[in-house]
Amino acid sequence: MSDTAAQQAQIQQQLDSWVQACLAKDVARIISHYAEDVVAYDAIGPLRFQGRAAYQAHWQACMEMCGGPAQFEIHQPSFLIGGDLGTLHYLLHCGGTDDKGQMQSSWMRVTQCFRQQGGRWLIVHEHFSMPCDMASGKTSFDLQP
Amino acid sequence: MSDTAAQQAQIQQQLDSWVQACLAKDVARIISHYAEDVVAYDAIGPLRFQGRAAYQAHWQACMEMCGGPAQFEIHQPSFLIGGDLGTLHYLLHCGGTDDKGQMQSSWMRVTQCFRQQGGRWLIVHEHFSMPCDMASGKTSFDLQP
Repeated sequence: MSDTAAQQAQIQQQLDSWVQACLAKDVARIISHYAEDVVAYDAIGPLRFQGRAAYQAHWQACMEMCGGPAQFEIHQPSFLIGGDLGTLHYLLHCGGTDDKGQMQSSWMRVTQCFRQQGGRWLIVHEHFSMPCDMASGKTSFDLQP
Repeated sequence: MSDTAAQQAQIQQQLDSWVQACLAKDVARIISHYAEDVVAYDAIGPLRFQGRAAYQAHWQACMEMCGGPAQFEIHQPSFLIGGDLGTLHYLLHCGGTDDKGQMQSSWMRVTQCFRQQGGRWLIVHEHFSMPCDMASGKTSFDLQP
């Protein structure tokens, strides 16, 4: 296995672990995948989150608001590897049941940057979003890939 | 200058050149900064753009729709460099005059990945967005950093 393939496999392992933590709605375990100085742009809320503590509070609030995702599927991640840096981007199919028990899901775009620190790959930057429909000014929740 | 500092300076130069092309509303020059197989997530429109030709058509449509930006200011980009890969993220203050001659501007979040190819740094992935206000379902155009 080449260095790059080995690095990609290590990042994929971290990614799988992060997805499992998200599905388990375990905020402490989710946040253990981030670097202390992470900068995050989420799909909802303010423009940016600086640092793990601020981002943890946001994850906690999101879990309390929506009960956490019941569906959290990464589709065909594309990896870019260089040295101890790994960037990936993918579409995420994310959903949960609403107060009527109906499944509501959306497709999101995700970009994540991992940096190897002390032998572990940690997320140093991430960017989640859904695009805007300019005609209505509304966020497009119902786009399909 | 270290290798990393030299690489960052080269990417910064490409970034400056891309900003100048955007302000000049020169789509051919803008698109020359992208790799053939770029994957882009824009703030408006569909979920993703695959390849330079599709993304060029989108840039062209945006320029025709809004007349192109009169303001396009990158604020404090953070660089992550690893080998021949450079990822950066920043807030972009972007605006133009509306049909009443009033300046309308918004803050956006941007993540860009550059890869060195044949001696040049080209954008292989980028992600623009504004967050959603969950209470209204509308895109937050008026957030301040």
